[in-house]
Amino acid sequence: MSTYNYGMIGIGVMGRNLLYNIAENGFSIAGFDLDKQKINDLKEGATSEMTVQGTDSLEEFVSSLETPRKIILMVPAGKPVDAVLENIKPLLSKGDIVIDAGNSYFKDTNRRVSDLATQGLHFMGMGVSGGEKGARFGPSIMPGGDLEAFHSVRPMLEAISAKVNGESCTAYMGKDAAGHYVKMVHNGIEYAIMQLISEAYDLLRKGANLNNDQLYEVFKKWNDGEMNSFLIEITRDIFQQKDSITGGFLLDQILDKAGSKGTGKWTSEEALETGVAIPTIDAAVASRTLSSYKEERIQASKLYTKVEITKPEDIDLFIQEVGDALFLSILISYTQGLSLLVKASEEYGFQIPLKDVVKIWRGGCIIRSSLLEKFYEVYTEDPNLSNILLNNKIAEIVKSKVTSLRKTNAFAVTNGIATLGLQTVLAYFDAYTTESLPVNLIQAQRDYFGAHTYQRKDQEGIFHTQWENTNN
Amino acid sequence: MSTYNYGMIGIGVMGRNLLYNIAENGFSIAGFDLDKQKINDLKEGATSEMTVQGTDSLEEFVSSLETPRKIILMVPAGKPVDAVLENIKPLLSKGDIVIDAGNSYFKDTNRRVSDLATQGLHFMGMGVSGGEKGARFGPSIMPGGDLEAFHSVRPMLEAISAKVNGESCTAYMGKDAAGHYVKMVHNGIEYAIMQLISEAYDLLRKGANLNNDQLYEVFKKWNDGEMNSFLIEITRDIFQQKDSITGGFLLDQILDKAGSKGTGKWTSEEALETGVAIPTIDAAVASRTLSSYKEERIQASKLYTKVEITKPEDIDLFIQEVGDALFLSILISYTQGLSLLVKASEEYGFQIPLKDVVKIWRGGCIIRSSLLEKFYEVYTEDPNLSNILLNNKIAEIVKSKVTSLRKTNAFAVTNGIATLGLQTVLAYFDAYTTESLPVNLIQAQRDYFGAHTYQRKDQEGIFHTQWENTNN
Repeated sequence: MSTYNYGMIGIGVMGRNLLYNIAENGFSIAGFDLDKQKINDLKEGATSEMTVQGTDSLEEFVSSLETPRKIILMVPAGKPVDAVLENIKPLLSKGDIVIDAGNSYFKDTNRRVSDLATQGLHFMGMGVSGGEKGARFGPSIMPGGDLEAFHSVRPMLEAISAKVNGESCTAYMGKDAAGHYVKMVHNGIEYAIMQLISEAYDLLRKGANLNNDQLYEVFKKWNDGEMNSFLIEITRDIFQQKDSITGGFLLDQILDKAGSKGTGKWTSEEALETGVAIPTIDAAVASRTLSSYKEERIQASKLYTKVEITKPEDIDLFIQEVGDALFLSILISYTQGLSLLVKASEEYGFQIPLKDVVKIWRGGCIIRSSLLEKFYEVYTEDPNLSNILLNNKIAEIVKSKVTSLRKTNAFAVTNGIATLGLQTVLAYFDAYTTESLPVNLIQAQRDYFGAHTYQRKDQEGIFHTQWENTNN
Repeated sequence: MSTYNYGMIGIGVMGRNLLYNIAENGFSIAGFDLDKQKINDLKEGATSEMTVQGTDSLEEFVSSLETPRKIILMVPAGKPVDAVLENIKPLLSKGDIVIDAGNSYFKDTNRRVSDLATQGLHFMGMGVSGGEKGARFGPSIMPGGDLEAFHSVRPMLEAISAKVNGESCTAYMGKDAAGHYVKMVHNGIEYAIMQLISEAYDLLRKGANLNNDQLYEVFKKWNDGEMNSFLIEITRDIFQQKDSITGGFLLDQILDKAGSKGTGKWTSEEALETGVAIPTIDAAVASRTLSSYKEERIQASKLYTKVEITKPEDIDLFIQEVGDALFLSILISYTQGLSLLVKASEEYGFQIPLKDVVKIWRGGCIIRSSLLEKFYEVYTEDPNLSNILLNNKIAEIVKSKVTSLRKTNAFAVTNGIATLGLQTVLAYFDAYTTESLPVNLIQAQRDYFGAHTYQRKDQEGIFHTQWENTNN
């Protein structure tokens, strides 16, 4: 008995892959699942080098682990996590470590940390990004919570995570639910980037009539250059995927109604709660919602005729501008997400190290990109930067791209191509870099009708005016 | 004893004004406040025709009301409401009616309805809009909750509310917290319209160099035409307000950092919760947040030089286009808010009558406008319209303005004038009226990295593909 280094609860595709990854790195590991089929699959998929075991007996599972026990949960967020915790708590001993590796809501994680602490148990929230393949061969891992517990699992996490320049894509993300918080914001940024890529695709197909083969070439070139990233890479591939049913391109057969799992929504809600502006992530969430109104959109498209598109004169130049616009927009999506982490870190006392966040996002995760290498350099020099747009090196990149974003956005609004993401990026940039916004008028209006008071530019204090109605 | 028809708890400016309004309409009313000064102010401000009384004794207050008692609360949202309820509950009798007329969060209202019902008390949430002046001389009043309780206070509400074409600006908004929900969305729309007006102001002052006198003339003309509304009217006035300190225009001395009371934020959160796209309200909230980064904006403005603005060739045409863009954007702000009401009404079972919502918003409230008269006609014909953009009459208006919005937005993005609100309006419109969005790509990406599956255009079902990496 008591032979396995780790335990994994939930051995569906993600759990099983992560389990194999751990086993392959020399750690013995037991898996628990109520589904016997999954236990069989686990055994069959394991190689002879792995020390793994599966069981549907929770007692057997728990007692097969060395103490202090180190148990990873990979079950759906929400009630299933609480249900598992209720079942295992009576079986655990003081000092045991439970790591929730699912996409749990960070407030749930905070609650569970406190709850398990009363029993002397360490609970950690840990974000894992990289999809099925990442889990198996090297994800980006965002652990947070109890520091002592982190240190005891750290060698394993460093072994199984993705590597960039020999460095592991895992690091301590901060106190309490910091790991899940960082993962939530990661997903918010992911939403934004996916939305922006889809808008670039729409501009190129509708604006410049590019077909899927041409789009493949464009995205291949982009991925081979400064835009190198996982999401650009898979987009490239998507343009080549054939459909086994029609024989044409699969992309053209996919319905344009987006689903979502909620983490983008959580990010927008959190930005509202903490008072941070992340309009591009908001736009990505709203755009998925708008896409779901498919029937209304069909009805509306009959009522409102589309603008006839004026094709760009120089297609190559247009493609280049759309590429620059996309690159800058992706940069500003990260900017918004990172600025949320800065504020949340203060607000909740997470002490999130931004330098480590961008470092571990460089590999393994869905939003990995070459750009993060630049961010890593910037935060290494200035770990407390409030907004990455304020860094000189980043400013040089932004300045070299912003005219393309202006042209692309002007093309989109003129030609009726919906670009909620791209437009919010530029408006965010223009507002953020403007000393004098027209918000003085909003303050005047608020004071006029609601006596909400205002501040002045020329002196300190709070003022209220009896505004005059010029009708009188 | 037992002589007053109504009671008012909280006689600050809003409470006192509403109390006078009630008294002036022939209902006797007692006021309660712990602040003796406010009680004195109440007595001094009353006319001889009013039957009013003020007290700082809750017992005396409650026992001076005829039964079943009808008590209105006008205290700050949140804990103060709960505190008042705890204090008065022991003094009330079965059948008494308590009406919360503050800006309470609708979920709090739902909770209080249930809580007071256990004691046989009727609790109503009631939105009141119109500011101090509205409260005194005729607000728009949005009551919801217990229908029986509503009927017993209805004559009073109809008497004190604003009137449009002889019709009272009050109506039953639906079950439970429907009244506060409608008020919350009202405020979300208010945020959007204020943001859009401020952007139009910025375009005219920076884009066309208009001074405050010229801006006054522009807004006067707009208010005298189809854009006639409270917010355009007070904006007109604001451009004329002189500053007693500098002698110049007051507007130019007001700091461009916006405050907020949270109801805009609630609206965006609710849209996320219920899955409705209201990007322009989101943009208004985000823009206020961005404005609060004043110090960072100053820093950024030094790092990023502004685009040199290319003035429009024909200033009069430009002003007209900005006006049309603003008008359409205001229309689409209402559209978004009303679409949230449609979904929330289903989701929470509120049974909100949209026809009555736009009817009572026509007068008294902050977002009152001539446009609502058109909406009232539309909803009278088709009370179950899911989105007002789908109505033919509205479509004619939209079509006549949309080219101006395109031109205005292209001008803004080209010239670096931050217009988060205006851009989201057009992107919302363009997405809503597009049959085929590029969201098929997002679904492909989600299936590629997360096996999230997708639907097809050509057949029913849920599909998953093993996507090929073209690197291999």
